[in-house]
Amino acid sequence: MVKKTYRILGIDTSLRSSGIGIIEVKKEKMRVIAFGRIHNKPTQSHSSCLKQIYNTISEIIDQHKPDHVAIEGTFFSKNAKTAMILGQARGAAIAACAQYNLSITEHSPRKVKQALTGNGSAQKDQVAKMVVQLLGLSEQPQEDAADALGIAICHHHQLKLPESLRSPLI
Amino acid sequence: MVKKTYRILGIDTSLRSSGIGIIEVKKEKMRVIAFGRIHNKPTQSHSSCLKQIYNTISEIIDQHKPDHVAIEGTFFSKNAKTAMILGQARGAAIAACAQYNLSITEHSPRKVKQALTGNGSAQKDQVAKMVVQLLGLSEQPQEDAADALGIAICHHHQLKLPESLRSPLI
Repeated sequence: MVKKTYRILGIDTSLRSSGIGIIEVKKEKMRVIAFGRIHNKPTQSHSSCLKQIYNTISEIIDQHKPDHVAIEGTFFSKNAKTAMILGQARGAAIAACAQYNLSITEHSPRKVKQALTGNGSAQKDQVAKMVVQLLGLSEQPQEDAADALGIAICHHHQLKLPESLRSPLI
Repeated sequence: MVKKTYRILGIDTSLRSSGIGIIEVKKEKMRVIAFGRIHNKPTQSHSSCLKQIYNTISEIIDQHKPDHVAIEGTFFSKNAKTAMILGQARGAAIAACAQYNLSITEHSPRKVKQALTGNGSAQKDQVAKMVVQLLGLSEQPQEDAADALGIAICHHHQLKLPESLRSPLI
């Protein structure tokens, strides 16, 4: 059962620069609540980056109280070392969201592109332009934040589908 | 600077069954403080498993107050999908430890085997038998817990080395 008014937190995780975007949907109309990125310096240790991801996401949830979380799905074509590092960043982000017992869904990059532009192979810039248009933003957000907002918008589309047709919760 | 008496938390992470082992070293003598595993049922969602890993490790640190954390290093030979799932479990575990600002070190399975048995290609059972002998346990712990205790013992050996020769912190 989806509430009439709800907030979606979109997350595009990576160890050094995770995008974050929150939208609110009210009577089918979307508006942006906040967006930005969690930036970790190249000099920071992995453990310090993971702590930062966990703590920032916790603060964002405390502040903006999303009802749903949508996270970018994984590229399984990446090599194992890259997948492990990305996995660690995702693990810290998901553990933070899970503390709030939020529903967490994964959407593949292809699905996000399809939902926003109608083309699963669209360029990142086309997705960012659609994010600007759909949310009525005055300027284009930084790339990771635009991706996160795109994931949140894709999730909003998905919530209109019958439950059996939605991506599974993770 | 390593204290004369200190505790090491060894962790062998995986999504469904992470091993945990804590040893105390006092005047060069090791003794076991606690060991066990974080068991997540096959029916639990990934997010619920990650929450459980994060929370259990936090509780263990609160209770046993380790000074160091040693975590099993990664197999980069695994495929990207497996690496991603293992990475998520590690990310939740490391984020929990990082909240306590503990030093966190990674030791490869080969290094742990070498430290315990003198042979980097030793079988798991040989490592478990050495864990029992070195810690004077009355019975062999379950496999993941034995691995975690092995990692903690390996870390104790490493702390005797000059800082420049130790594995880097993560």
